[in-house]
Amino acid sequence: MEPIDDAAVTDATGFTAGAVHAGIKKDGQSLDLCILASDRPAVAAGVFTRNKVRAAPVKLSEERLRTGRCQAVVVNAGNANACTGEQGMADARRMTELAAAKLGIPASDVIVASTGVIGVHLPMEKIEAGIQKIHLSRTAGHDAARAIMTTDLVPKEAGCRVRLGSHTVTVAGMAKGSGMIHPNMATMLSFIVTDAAVHPSFLRRALHEAVDNSFNQMTVDGDTSTNDTLVVLANGAAGNPTLDDQSLDARRFRDALTSVAAELAQKVARDGEGATKFIEMRVEGAASDDDARRAAKAVVGSSLVKTAVYGADPNWGRVLCALGYSGADVDETKVDLRIGDVWLMRNGQIQQFDRQAGVDALKGPDVLIWCDLNLGSGRGVAWGCDLTEGYVEINGKYTT
Amino acid sequence: MEPIDDAAVTDATGFTAGAVHAGIKKDGQSLDLCILASDRPAVAAGVFTRNKVRAAPVKLSEERLRTGRCQAVVVNAGNANACTGEQGMADARRMTELAAAKLGIPASDVIVASTGVIGVHLPMEKIEAGIQKIHLSRTAGHDAARAIMTTDLVPKEAGCRVRLGSHTVTVAGMAKGSGMIHPNMATMLSFIVTDAAVHPSFLRRALHEAVDNSFNQMTVDGDTSTNDTLVVLANGAAGNPTLDDQSLDARRFRDALTSVAAELAQKVARDGEGATKFIEMRVEGAASDDDARRAAKAVVGSSLVKTAVYGADPNWGRVLCALGYSGADVDETKVDLRIGDVWLMRNGQIQQFDRQAGVDALKGPDVLIWCDLNLGSGRGVAWGCDLTEGYVEINGKYTT
Repeated sequence: MEPIDDAAVTDATGFTAGAVHAGIKKDGQSLDLCILASDRPAVAAGVFTRNKVRAAPVKLSEERLRTGRCQAVVVNAGNANACTGEQGMADARRMTELAAAKLGIPASDVIVASTGVIGVHLPMEKIEAGIQKIHLSRTAGHDAARAIMTTDLVPKEAGCRVRLGSHTVTVAGMAKGSGMIHPNMATMLSFIVTDAAVHPSFLRRALHEAVDNSFNQMTVDGDTSTNDTLVVLANGAAGNPTLDDQSLDARRFRDALTSVAAELAQKVARDGEGATKFIEMRVEGAASDDDARRAAKAVVGSSLVKTAVYGADPNWGRVLCALGYSGADVDETKVDLRIGDVWLMRNGQIQQFDRQAGVDALKGPDVLIWCDLNLGSGRGVAWGCDLTEGYVEINGKYTT
Repeated sequence: MEPIDDAAVTDATGFTAGAVHAGIKKDGQSLDLCILASDRPAVAAGVFTRNKVRAAPVKLSEERLRTGRCQAVVVNAGNANACTGEQGMADARRMTELAAAKLGIPASDVIVASTGVIGVHLPMEKIEAGIQKIHLSRTAGHDAARAIMTTDLVPKEAGCRVRLGSHTVTVAGMAKGSGMIHPNMATMLSFIVTDAAVHPSFLRRALHEAVDNSFNQMTVDGDTSTNDTLVVLANGAAGNPTLDDQSLDARRFRDALTSVAAELAQKVARDGEGATKFIEMRVEGAASDDDARRAAKAVVGSSLVKTAVYGADPNWGRVLCALGYSGADVDETKVDLRIGDVWLMRNGQIQQFDRQAGVDALKGPDVLIWCDLNLGSGRGVAWGCDLTEGYVEINGKYTT
């Protein structure tokens, strides 16, 4: 598996993108509307928010993906089209019709995603004019990644190439998200494309495995959005024999997909609203992998751990506390715990540590916390960010 | 039921308290060690944290309360005696022995609670000297409420008197808590006493009902502590016929207990770390009372709702989002939603509202959010506070 430098969704063969400033965002200049399209119908799979309040584009896209086929995605930022009732559903459908007309394909092969403020109707005239202005090309992948941003400071893109027999397959993706980030089955918005040829049911299973080890292990603020959407399109342009669970190369493809998804998820955590530090929590020795993932996610989700990391305060009892309420099996008399290279607990015994070394381990932009629960062989990792005055500042004034 | 102004735990007949500065807290002057005692053995019940990492005093006290009997509680602030292994258990037992010796009662009738930093051994010499200095009296109830504080800015006390036949019974309590507050079966620390005569099993059921409608509906930061403890002592000094589930007055006593617990829980939320506003979320029309409580608690627990309240930003979509991920049944096309007197949604339809009125509804120290899910007759309420730069400030520097 070979990572792609400066990856873009248009790195996969047969995919084009285009983005414009349609005037949905208030700043009057940012890109806020884009289309990502394949030159042929693609096998597709998606995972969507488990929030019971689901935005119109989530409902429509989930319905359309039941066919396992999709050719294009149209996305706007600045307005989530959530809690918008019948009008919202009609607007979401209209967005797919406008994109389909532009591309000369059926609207049933187009899905839609929206992100931004909840409870406001979409400005459809701006969207209609914007879609007409979009020009799709093989070089606009980075523009598309910018067009889906809201409070994000940086675009998030990742990609890799993997050899399957005599064919080289590309997997590339983009994601957005900075606040209201606590994905449950998907992140805020992410689109991954590949030119691999795959069976629909294989793609669905590979996607769920990738999500469980990437977006579902990442949190910014514990709020599961109404619009979480992760879609994978596989157009087969690489010409490889169609992959299924029995293929020799199935594992390589699944690992490539998981790797791209994990890189995107880490980039979202790193760009969490107000964040100054990225936190990685590794749990080993859990009773099961599920337990390990649950324990790791509780730690990166704890407001007290997040503020301690921000303040570079080695108040490690908060990590133990979060492990304890995670729902995972934990016996604190057996735990090993380390922050960076500083040992805090060994086999449940408090370790004397050099306080300054503990502070230093929390001072850099990347903080690693590691524990071994010494209960079994389960492993898991989760990613998050620190909680700062910046988060409060950004979110006290989002609609104003 | 008649509320008591300026209530203290010593308002119930037969209870005394005493507090000293033992030097466990770093500031060198605050009260940090206290004893609360009954003049006779009391019927007792308790609920404790569901965190799997449980402090030594939690383990010991839960074990001792299995008898349904207790006469005194010894409490320290400044050190949680959590994650402290065998030494921690020995220290907890020793605290009860020292208090028992002072009072001339068996150690098995004494329980213990601790709150403060996790992962540091108790300074037992200071505690031993401190317990010797404690003087118990009927007027030191307010001192005891101060001695259990950590980052709390104000002590939390509540009490009421209720007429049971020809007897007047007093229920009075105190609580502490400001951070690591997301109780699961109990709050950080709370002690409620009554001079009512009660059957042990009746008291246990009354306590669980009270907790479900008070401490379990309150959150500050989503972190369930290792030390949550709520204990009720009933010493029978009021001389009423012993209450059980069949008693005519059972409902009146349960309501009095719930009322004192709810007032204490609200006081904890109001004093949340860094908080400038108290938030009450009322949910009606839920499929069940459980659903209503769950939905209300998700809203007051949402970082995005908390920051929006802080910024007086009527970004009500965040309330809908939290209702949606709460786990309760929610159909956003049916919801009524109001902040203060400002209607935002009626029967799922977005309401045009005066933005300034929306801002004004969020500007005062008490914010009321109300929704009707229009699905059934379930009702519930939850309490929380806003999330501010102050919370980040306090928690970035707690052990330093």
